Amino acid sequence: MTSIVAPLLAWPARVSIREVGPRDGLQNEHVMLTTAQKVLLVETLADAGVAMIEAGAFVRRDSVPQMADTEEVFAAITRRPGVMYSAIVPNAVGARRAVLARVDALQVFLSASESHNQSNVNMRVEESLVQAADIAAIVRNAGLRFEAVISVAFGCPFEGDVPLERVMDLAGRLLDMGAEQITFGDTTGMGHPGLVRDLVLAYSARFPRVKPRLHLHSARGAGLANVLMALQLGVDCFDASVGGIGGCPFAPGAPGNICTEDLVHMLHEMGIATGIRLPALIDATRVLERMLGRTVPGQTIKAGVCKHLPPDGGPRGE
Amino acid sequence: MTSIVAPLLAWPARVSIREVGPRDGLQNEHVMLTTAQKVLLVETLADAGVAMIEAGAFVRRDSVPQMADTEEVFAAITRRPGVMYSAIVPNAVGARRAVLARVDALQVFLSASESHNQSNVNMRVEESLVQAADIAAIVRNAGLRFEAVISVAFGCPFEGDVPLERVMDLAGRLLDMGAEQITFGDTTGMGHPGLVRDLVLAYSARFPRVKPRLHLHSARGAGLANVLMALQLGVDCFDASVGGIGGCPFAPGAPGNICTEDLVHMLHEMGIATGIRLPALIDATRVLERMLGRTVPGQTIKAGVCKHLPPDGGPRGE
Repeated sequence: MTSIVAPLLAWPARVSIREVGPRDGLQNEHVMLTTAQKVLLVETLADAGVAMIEAGAFVRRDSVPQMADTEEVFAAITRRPGVMYSAIVPNAVGARRAVLARVDALQVFLSASESHNQSNVNMRVEESLVQAADIAAIVRNAGLRFEAVISVAFGCPFEGDVPLERVMDLAGRLLDMGAEQITFGDTTGMGHPGLVRDLVLAYSARFPRVKPRLHLHSARGAGLANVLMALQLGVDCFDASVGGIGGCPFAPGAPGNICTEDLVHMLHEMGIATGIRLPALIDATRVLERMLGRTVPGQTIKAGVCKHLPPDGGPRGE
Repeated sequence: MTSIVAPLLAWPARVSIREVGPRDGLQNEHVMLTTAQKVLLVETLADAGVAMIEAGAFVRRDSVPQMADTEEVFAAITRRPGVMYSAIVPNAVGARRAVLARVDALQVFLSASESHNQSNVNMRVEESLVQAADIAAIVRNAGLRFEAVISVAFGCPFEGDVPLERVMDLAGRLLDMGAEQITFGDTTGMGHPGLVRDLVLAYSARFPRVKPRLHLHSARGAGLANVLMALQLGVDCFDASVGGIGGCPFAPGAPGNICTEDLVHMLHEMGIATGIRLPALIDATRVLERMLGRTVPGQTIKAGVCKHLPPDGGPRGE
């Protein structure tokens, strides 16, 4: 993170994007892709230069049938050098499966509100923290990367506001367990620039040594505005979903995850490097559209890449 | 405008929104509304607290059939006290029609690029400037408000980049004619935060006495990010279109104007007052959806208003 007193008219020169479409996106789609289709999607994304891909979830197969073949996906993908393939896990059982599947990184996920955690993983938050400690030990023994996701960090669809202090306390406990990154999830798109500002400032003041990642949704259109606010405060790690797939489980028809192509388009226009080749990413989205048999919510795929971006698919020069 | 060295983590306390759905939105829709429907839409928007409404265009009726009944719309709407009803005009003929129709404000529109101006109003930019001077005189004699819109100020779909200096020169000439506001139009959604920053800084340095207005599109998802950048630089006047209707004439299926509900939702979340009651605005959007017989691109209407916004429809308290 750059200093928070840095000029806010500027932004980082490079941003790390973790592609979550194969997990968060597909998990919330009605169409079930085959394992072969998922593998093709992951490989196409890696070919486009995406360096971090959340390729599945080690959760109960009966509860989340869309992710039931995560082992098979990890076994089948041809790993591209330099690409980090990750998965999310709610408990130690999932962590052991993930280690066996040879993931590169694991994220434990838990919610900042009791009602969302109960609804999502059927545990109290304290129980999730106990699981997180077990997961951390398993991952450490396996020599892999341990990270954490705090869901509904910007508001809970059941409880409304989530106290910032509660979010920071959870972050502190997960960092104490050795989390190498904390991702703050705006799980149902309740974030806005003021909240992003407050959360990022609070986090960077209290935990200046471990970079945060933001997992933003755009349920009400403000996803990229939230990204901009975070960029101005030096945040350089974001999640996004190819095509903007995933939707919002609490609002049928509303968009969910911010769309990777739209994010990359804005960043490249701003002169920020992502390592992703935009035309190749858009090709991946078209592959996905054919698999899903429908138009995705992302906008760049409809409007086309702006004429003033360079044809090599990289960022605009300054 | 606040000073450009003001803390960029803050924003104006109040924003002026001009609703352009009845003009820019409907002009680019395939469905033709009846005059009675347009009047109902305008009145419903005014009832929701929208204080500026672009209700039509005085252009050639054969070229733009969607706007052919602008005289009838202005004659039929019940004017709400405190609401400014405006229209756009390309030439002196249009201005005379607008004065007879008793508009409150007129915007002359011209493009920052020759090819777009030619395509849009079939004149060279210099010819449009001659018309603008005539319009200014007509409006001044009628005692009305004269304003100007510079289209494709953030990039041209035909020419790509538009030099900032060219945009500033046009602004200067229109201000010399007495324009009381300059609106910078991102007509096809080519703007990004870096460009918004550069344009606003250039304008406010050169013309500090006349507030700019931004007319932003969100063809590639960055519309509200562009709003945020402008807000941080003190810009407090924006155009938006109810439901996000209008699309992009150069990209079928791509969104056009930023959506009024999405804009108001973000502003109210940020504690910024707009004078608009969000639930009533969403009701207006539902009225519009029934008229158009289709779902609009706006996202708040699908995701619903966030639980942490106050029920009276105003901004969040800080």
